[in-house]
Amino acid sequence: MRRLKATISYDGTLFAGYQVQPGERTVQLELENVLTKMHKGEKVKVTASGRTDARVHATGQVIHFDTTLAIPVERYKKALNVQLPRDIRVLEVEEMDNGFHARYSVSGKRYRYIWSCEEEQSPFRRHYAVEANGLKPDVAKMEEAAQYIIGTHDFTCFCAANTSVVDKVRTVHSLSFSWHGEELHMVIEGNGFLYNMVRIIAGTIWEVGIGKREAKEMKEIIASMDRGRAGKTAPAHGLYLEKVFY
Amino acid sequence: MRRLKATISYDGTLFAGYQVQPGERTVQLELENVLTKMHKGEKVKVTASGRTDARVHATGQVIHFDTTLAIPVERYKKALNVQLPRDIRVLEVEEMDNGFHARYSVSGKRYRYIWSCEEEQSPFRRHYAVEANGLKPDVAKMEEAAQYIIGTHDFTCFCAANTSVVDKVRTVHSLSFSWHGEELHMVIEGNGFLYNMVRIIAGTIWEVGIGKREAKEMKEIIASMDRGRAGKTAPAHGLYLEKVFY
Repeated sequence: MRRLKATISYDGTLFAGYQVQPGERTVQLELENVLTKMHKGEKVKVTASGRTDARVHATGQVIHFDTTLAIPVERYKKALNVQLPRDIRVLEVEEMDNGFHARYSVSGKRYRYIWSCEEEQSPFRRHYAVEANGLKPDVAKMEEAAQYIIGTHDFTCFCAANTSVVDKVRTVHSLSFSWHGEELHMVIEGNGFLYNMVRIIAGTIWEVGIGKREAKEMKEIIASMDRGRAGKTAPAHGLYLEKVFY
Repeated sequence: MRRLKATISYDGTLFAGYQVQPGERTVQLELENVLTKMHKGEKVKVTASGRTDARVHATGQVIHFDTTLAIPVERYKKALNVQLPRDIRVLEVEEMDNGFHARYSVSGKRYRYIWSCEEEQSPFRRHYAVEANGLKPDVAKMEEAAQYIIGTHDFTCFCAANTSVVDKVRTVHSLSFSWHGEELHMVIEGNGFLYNMVRIIAGTIWEVGIGKREAKEMKEIIASMDRGRAGKTAPAHGLYLEKVFY
């Protein structure tokens, strides 16, 4: 048995998320179907760095699986891509020692969130960036708000209320903004993220950008440990899992 | 009655083309539905510069229609976009005199054709560029082939065989190539294009790029006036109607 690590990209538009759910088309299901077929029906389990929700994209999700096939690692990528649907692509396959685990070995992640700020969003971007309805955010204020988020905090305020995780302390290493034409990108890196954390941060910091909140409120919101104090969860289709660090 | 000209963009992925066809979702149908609703049920006919096929995109299609509504021209764009599906966007609305006709007044068009030449096409580009399957074309050869196409010719060889148009003489003003990252763009401008002409040119010139044909064959192909001598019709989803000239 060899343990393989694969870096994959997917367009989340037509998936009910990463994780297998009965009756739904998911990324995990498509990966396991192809691998199981390649292994002549022997069920292959795929483990990811973490799940992503419906319509969330990935440009650098990481998975691992164990294989009994003799396919050389450098040919595995092609072998998978030939059979996978076109909205999932394998970018790289590496052989790891058996101690590697796509989820437990994670040391950090990077996400990107994209807003379209042109007057009318291009029809080609409707699944890939969130329309700002012509609003032009004040990025300096969003950067000011980001300073309260960077660091080690209990992020209960930015976590979906229905989560079972007990320890909600995480470290955000960086949180920055950049314009790409008329699209605003937020890039956030940290040692781990709670359920919906990036989308709630995006939703809250956006409200700062458009003048609905003051940047300094961020401090009180974090201290409150109250999800109700933070802003809306920003839409799923603006979010990209970009890199997983090990 | 005022005659309005609108410049529109659409993502062709989920359309059975521009023109109304019974039982199909088309761009014209969506436009006429919204306009007819705005006109309280009075049927509004929309005329485009020409049709586009299923899955072909537009970043600068032009339409005209006549309206009895008192909406100021500068508000018409918003009024339409609020009701249109998100894969069609109105970019501009202008008031014209009644002599303007979106189709008969056309003096030329510009199309773009896009190939993805990275080793594996990004899942985000699968509907928007044609995968080159890792082939790297020789663009200098494609540029050489383009020189035979530029000019005024009978383009029967590059016209779908089932067309009823009699005069197949057209003028191609320019035909050029440029790299955008790992995507190759072909931009073609002319006074008019026959049915499937851009896609057949793209398919034929691509075969020159990947070494399946010589650039100089282009001269014989055009002289032959034989569709069978030209290459394959390139896939629809790589094609964009970019600008209509009046």
